[in-house]
Amino acid sequence: MSLKGKHLLCTQDWSRQELERVLELAEDMKRERWTDKYAHVLDRRTFFMFFYNPSVRTRQSFECAATELGGHAQFLEPKSMRLKTSQSAGETVEDASKVMSRYACGIGIRILEDKIGAYGQGHELCEEYARWSDVPIVSMAHDKFHPCQGLADMQGLWQHLGRDRLEGKKLLQVWGHGALARSWCSVQESMLICSRFGMDITLAHPEGYDLDPEVLAQVEKNCAENGRELEISNDPVRCYDGAHVVYSRNWMHPDTYEDGEFHKAEEIERALAHPEWICDEKKMKRTDDALFTHPMPIDRGHEVSDAVASGRRSIIYDVAENRLHVQKAIMALTMGDVR
Amino acid sequence: MSLKGKHLLCTQDWSRQELERVLELAEDMKRERWTDKYAHVLDRRTFFMFFYNPSVRTRQSFECAATELGGHAQFLEPKSMRLKTSQSAGETVEDASKVMSRYACGIGIRILEDKIGAYGQGHELCEEYARWSDVPIVSMAHDKFHPCQGLADMQGLWQHLGRDRLEGKKLLQVWGHGALARSWCSVQESMLICSRFGMDITLAHPEGYDLDPEVLAQVEKNCAENGRELEISNDPVRCYDGAHVVYSRNWMHPDTYEDGEFHKAEEIERALAHPEWICDEKKMKRTDDALFTHPMPIDRGHEVSDAVASGRRSIIYDVAENRLHVQKAIMALTMGDVR
Amino acid sequence: MSLKGKHLLCTQDWSRQELERVLELAEDMKRERWTDKYAHVLDRRTFFMFFYNPSVRTRQSFECAATELGGHAQFLEPKSMRLKTSQSAGETVEDASKVMSRYACGIGIRILEDKIGAYGQGHELCEEYARWSDVPIVSMAHDKFHPCQGLADMQGLWQHLGRDRLEGKKLLQVWGHGALARSWCSVQESMLICSRFGMDITLAHPEGYDLDPEVLAQVEKNCAENGRELEISNDPVRCYDGAHVVYSRNWMHPDTYEDGEFHKAEEIERALAHPEWICDEKKMKRTDDALFTHPMPIDRGHEVSDAVASGRRSIIYDVAENRLHVQKAIMALTMGDVR
Repeated sequence: MSLKGKHLLCTQDWSRQELERVLELAEDMKRERWTDKYAHVLDRRTFFMFFYNPSVRTRQSFECAATELGGHAQFLEPKSMRLKTSQSAGETVEDASKVMSRYACGIGIRILEDKIGAYGQGHELCEEYARWSDVPIVSMAHDKFHPCQGLADMQGLWQHLGRDRLEGKKLLQVWGHGALARSWCSVQESMLICSRFGMDITLAHPEGYDLDPEVLAQVEKNCAENGRELEISNDPVRCYDGAHVVYSRNWMHPDTYEDGEFHKAEEIERALAHPEWICDEKKMKRTDDALFTHPMPIDRGHEVSDAVASGRRSIIYDVAENRLHVQKAIMALTMGDVR
Repeated sequence: MSLKGKHLLCTQDWSRQELERVLELAEDMKRERWTDKYAHVLDRRTFFMFFYNPSVRTRQSFECAATELGGHAQFLEPKSMRLKTSQSAGETVEDASKVMSRYACGIGIRILEDKIGAYGQGHELCEEYARWSDVPIVSMAHDKFHPCQGLADMQGLWQHLGRDRLEGKKLLQVWGHGALARSWCSVQESMLICSRFGMDITLAHPEGYDLDPEVLAQVEKNCAENGRELEISNDPVRCYDGAHVVYSRNWMHPDTYEDGEFHKAEEIERALAHPEWICDEKKMKRTDDALFTHPMPIDRGHEVSDAVASGRRSIIYDVAENRLHVQKAIMALTMGDVR
Repeated sequence: MSLKGKHLLCTQDWSRQELERVLELAEDMKRERWTDKYAHVLDRRTFFMFFYNPSVRTRQSFECAATELGGHAQFLEPKSMRLKTSQSAGETVEDASKVMSRYACGIGIRILEDKIGAYGQGHELCEEYARWSDVPIVSMAHDKFHPCQGLADMQGLWQHLGRDRLEGKKLLQVWGHGALARSWCSVQESMLICSRFGMDITLAHPEGYDLDPEVLAQVEKNCAENGRELEISNDPVRCYDGAHVVYSRNWMHPDTYEDGEFHKAEEIERALAHPEWICDEKKMKRTDDALFTHPMPIDRGHEVSDAVASGRRSIIYDVAENRLHVQKAIMALTMGDVR
């Protein structure tokens, strides 16, 4: 199995065997972080990071990843790049991708809702880059998916539940109220990868906060292939019953950018009207001593209480660290000569 | 011949022998890109990139160049640097240059028209840096010249026409209509270096779109020294007759920033009134099976048709790649110990 | 003595022996800059630079420092980081610090007056990061202190006066008029470290331009411990009498941000009303052939005349270079395995 040259826009595009290879390598890279074993995998190679949306965490982990493999990640903001659009003159994605393929070993792209006119356009742009690029395109979070976060989540579950004990465990993917109007990508990716690895999924949110129906259909299909189920709930309390992993996070209402504008202020007001949607110790008592996870940054006091976020079963910092390890593994496998 | 410590603001400042050394080394660096041969030329050295004007492409290629030589290029935006001007307090260029010379092995500067009050001021600023700096100043494109682009163009001609077959070939440097109000630096540098290497030059543009008369006088002188000619044409069709290389690109009218302001909107409107100035397949049939080149990013549909830009004789991606190779060669020769 | 893991927010927090270790190592790093001796101290390690306030010089010297030690410094602007405040949702400093500790070997923070509501808040933020971080926090200049500048100043005095000849020498820390409304951190740090090393301190400024009384009390205490004195003068001329080192620099009036706003324009107007506060050759004649120093960038013509800044006894460029050496030494001792 060679992953060299492969794009990564969603974990669903890769086989389970390929995802397991990434996770195994990520675990080994964690162990061998400061030995010479992987120190020259990307020697003098350049990885371009295209941040249509800014991000401190994602930038930190990708730039560290390239550095630790002996290479270098360039932090690029396409606002200073004149790309052709229907309204303005500029360079085509074809030209941009072909030239960048001459310079870099891979290209990361981050594009979220406030930089696009409608859900799905970010994914289309990633696919357009992938179409023309000769080097791997890796999503660093876009409107639909966040494969590196999904893999970091899964590595966390391998570490804290055990790789061979995920089958039949229940993931509660639950909406949290809050003031950040967050993208769907992390939660959609989480349900996709967890259902691939044999977990039951409970998705819980207030009425109206539906996610992408195509993604839900895929999650349902993944569950069915493993003899598992996707359950959808609007009950902020009973959804916790028997869960093994709780992932509480805010996401925006489908109406947030209905008319091609991103209505952040309205969305925050709408979300704050649901204070009962918080993960706290009382609810956690209904679970089967569940782990608490979150992709961070956390909106403490809204998405989750301090007691849970900083509690005995919280794996948030390990999962954040895993971003580094899985991203190194992805780069090594798709851009280096590691198999 | 040692080029150590030498500034590069224009290829005209260097002897033909020195330019050939850069090009030979660039070709070797292309071949040896991933071997150890040049892997440690700038080990742990820092190159400062000063972007008065933003640029994605130039930043990518310079930062890759430093990384591939074992060093690191810092992306700096002088907007956060308080330089002394006639209007405001701040640091003198003397102080800035002398301190930076203590940290870096070289300094790149990019400054174009919308950051200055009149054509020529960018060149003066580069010269002021060069006056005080103890390390090489390299233009990363300024209002008058773009030596790295000129060298990348020439490397493309060596690759596709043959180093020994340039003598007497005809370069058509032709204006393209478009909506980007571009600087003169690339086209002036192209004519300077091509005339140095024995080519005939035809410069074609609508009436009024004259370039710098001093530069044209120098091109004429270069031509004369090789027994060649500079011809100026206002005919968008017949200028193509017999050309071996076509370089179609927009540039701004001399009036664009006549009064110390950069009138971009007016310039775009003025330029779009000349739709006959586009390089297309019909015109290319008048040439001697000419190569098509362009410094990119291309404004397709204005400067050139898709059929030509993506056609059999287009060398645009190779020339873009050459930016990396010539910049590595320049850095190695002026900042490293390569001869 | 191991300094591994130690934060550096002010030189006063470190023992004199620890500061001397930094300075000795900085001197050795200057000598061995391009040998292999320290080339792998931070191999593949990442240092995060958090610039709440932009800075070209500080960024250049820290990023060079990491590169020369084999590592990499990331230039981060927290404006794209959603930190929790009393007014807005976001991540806690606890979460941010704990995650960053998983990625980086150390974290630098720069935060000055126009990014805070009152003097002291920048220092509190640095302390909050230090409270939660598992890796060293290094101040890259904050409202109260600038330890790296203080160490670079002291290295300059070791180089030009002699390490063993500082005892009893007089430092004139004098206010300069000017148009930049500068922070107190550099001058406060200078007086703290110079008084630790046995110098007499004369602080001179126009009436009203008082510095932090707690810092002055500490300087007085440092002086007393060495049998030296802190003298405060409002005389712009006689303060020069017998000085061995003159450090002339503007700083802002305590009222500048009295009401939680940073009144830069008013402060510049107020400062420019004191043109007699400039360091010039006439005043320098009253000294004991004093060295002139300044942390740069210099506001020539306001803080100091050209003749003095570029004169025979000016050590400004050496001190600027020392920033690189002391920062490398600090990183090596607190983040690497050098002792």
